Amino acid sequence: MSVKFAVLGYGVVGSGVVELFYKNKRSIEKRAGTEMDIKYIVDIRDFPDSPYADKFTKNFSDVLNDPEVTVVAECMGGVEPAFSFLKAALEKGKSAATSNKELVAEKGDILLAAAKANNCNFFFEASVGGAIPIIRPLHRCLAANDIDKVAGILNGTTNFILTKMYTEGRSFEDALKLAQELGYAEKDPTADVEGHDACRKICIISSLVFGKHVYPRLVYTKGISDVKLCDVAAADILGHGVKLIASVRRLADGRILPCVMPMLVSHDNVMAGVNDVFNAVMVYGDGIDQAMFYGRGAGKLPTASAVLGDVIEAAKHRVTVFSQSWDSADDDSFVAPVEELKTKWYFRVPEENQPAEGAYCDENGASFIGGEMTFAEAQADAQRLSAMACIPVLD
Amino acid sequence: MSVKFAVLGYGVVGSGVVELFYKNKRSIEKRAGTEMDIKYIVDIRDFPDSPYADKFTKNFSDVLNDPEVTVVAECMGGVEPAFSFLKAALEKGKSAATSNKELVAEKGDILLAAAKANNCNFFFEASVGGAIPIIRPLHRCLAANDIDKVAGILNGTTNFILTKMYTEGRSFEDALKLAQELGYAEKDPTADVEGHDACRKICIISSLVFGKHVYPRLVYTKGISDVKLCDVAAADILGHGVKLIASVRRLADGRILPCVMPMLVSHDNVMAGVNDVFNAVMVYGDGIDQAMFYGRGAGKLPTASAVLGDVIEAAKHRVTVFSQSWDSADDDSFVAPVEELKTKWYFRVPEENQPAEGAYCDENGASFIGGEMTFAEAQADAQRLSAMACIPVLD
Repeated sequence: MSVKFAVLGYGVVGSGVVELFYKNKRSIEKRAGTEMDIKYIVDIRDFPDSPYADKFTKNFSDVLNDPEVTVVAECMGGVEPAFSFLKAALEKGKSAATSNKELVAEKGDILLAAAKANNCNFFFEASVGGAIPIIRPLHRCLAANDIDKVAGILNGTTNFILTKMYTEGRSFEDALKLAQELGYAEKDPTADVEGHDACRKICIISSLVFGKHVYPRLVYTKGISDVKLCDVAAADILGHGVKLIASVRRLADGRILPCVMPMLVSHDNVMAGVNDVFNAVMVYGDGIDQAMFYGRGAGKLPTASAVLGDVIEAAKHRVTVFSQSWDSADDDSFVAPVEELKTKWYFRVPEENQPAEGAYCDENGASFIGGEMTFAEAQADAQRLSAMACIPVLD
Repeated sequence: MSVKFAVLGYGVVGSGVVELFYKNKRSIEKRAGTEMDIKYIVDIRDFPDSPYADKFTKNFSDVLNDPEVTVVAECMGGVEPAFSFLKAALEKGKSAATSNKELVAEKGDILLAAAKANNCNFFFEASVGGAIPIIRPLHRCLAANDIDKVAGILNGTTNFILTKMYTEGRSFEDALKLAQELGYAEKDPTADVEGHDACRKICIISSLVFGKHVYPRLVYTKGISDVKLCDVAAADILGHGVKLIASVRRLADGRILPCVMPMLVSHDNVMAGVNDVFNAVMVYGDGIDQAMFYGRGAGKLPTASAVLGDVIEAAKHRVTVFSQSWDSADDDSFVAPVEELKTKWYFRVPEENQPAEGAYCDENGASFIGGEMTFAEAQADAQRLSAMACIPVLD
């Protein structure tokens, strides 16, 4: 029997899915244990010169009403119409794979429930960490663990900018400009630079690990546009790199605390060596202690690799893989506010306010790493010391 | 329906499996979608004071002849009697999970065939990289990729020794002694230090990625006992760390070249930051570019986490997961000899033999990184230059 699937959206990722599938079709079919082919490519644009011109359609209903299509790969981005399309497909028993983090972060619980109710699968490996296998390892390979913390570098654009600030002494503005020139940052870089992209991804991870849907609006999110070159330099002298960290931890009372913030990462932590556009996710559990997953977090073929990996899984599993799921959240009380985040903090203060020891002083002030305190306490200390910078340290 | 499984061997790993299972039993059952319990623990020793005393048996036949037991977790180590036990279990349709790299490297093809013939599963995530999910991601998440190279730090003992040589300036002998004192190295450290352990693991990865059983005897294996402190120091000045690298690559003609050797790893490579007893595996594919998996490669609970992850998979899948498999090798011609390994090389030579530029000189001689050449050419150059050291550079 042959498995026919449809690709929704022929942009960067969608065209990558088509390209990689036909490049490795033989070995993919061998691994799937079945013949496979793309029957439709859905896009509102025309591609008359494409070698796959005969597969294009502008009508999603062609896919929906074709019983031969059993899997749908969504690469359009945005909540709508992706959500309506996938919900309809799942309700017809067609499995879905998506690279769309916005969709999963906002509507994952609904789509997972639809998949379950219709005995098919909703997969989203590509929505977090691009090529990096993280979703499936989290709920499959690490299933014996009690996971209590995840911390990751989940946005390549900001990691590229911070790397260039560190290695080339560029200012944030200058490094952002370079990222835009190289195509790593969009013209309007807000979603990346202000942390919204990383926020969606930590929402997906939080939901999967802790079993309840975590909405982006519940997650304190601070980007890197305030990170000063002098703080990157001082952090280095104090033994740390500065990274945009999306993290979630379980507190003693069972609530979880997700957040996205620039953080100091010790040079001894392998995450400090994750540079340029690369992403990484560190998982902490009672069995594994810690495990890290590293790779390209974005890009045409890396993201396509993850989408296709899901399509192959969907082709192999004709019944719901029910363990990859989470519940809708009844209320928000299981998410703790960022004010309760407890860790060490880096401060840069006027020289006269420096502590008795351990500060690095230069013309930008006195930089030091203080003791453990909550976010709320750190804000108060920062005000009291007239701090120019106050950045948490990843523990 | 409840799934009953047996644990073979109550040593470090086996007792870890029992401990972690009962610690997280509720969440494990939720993820498995079924009730689960350990029915037997097989060990020739007596454990009268164990809280699980009623589960112990000395007779594997109790497990084999009990139709209620559907999964067997093997944590005994060594080829026999583990091989006979698991073969008999698989032939009765019981799935098996093992942490036994020696067994998988020597007999994996036979056990995989037995699983396939009897519609059950043979899983071995714990046999490579301890807690690190690598086997399942390789053949599941990365299924859309044409993988052409894998390189890893697959032995924690040697990585600990090399880390201590680098960070504390200890000699090999001194660092080995420390590793033994801390319990990271055995009294007879040969299997770790001479690379045999890493060799078994790269055999398993090579077999899985390239589809044919690769026997340890086919793999050139050189350990770290010849690595001199002065070479670690000189490599650092030349921008590299020294790591014991187990790797396999596919050559242009389709043959594969697996080998285990100390190698120089660029400080820019995230693997250079993998220190102490930690392991990491870097996978190169046409979709992903590169992806790395990092974590604890050994230890009681980390290894138990991987074994239990497999047990949970086996509990969920009652039919053969046929994609995780490889064929027996008809002959050895698909494995290329190490003489064909082509890469850059580090040399340390008498000062009078140093090249025109780029060498670092001290009382130990002149150290430099030469151009790309084969293993055979490097050996010839080393002889010609009276080299005191000749170490490949990881590309």
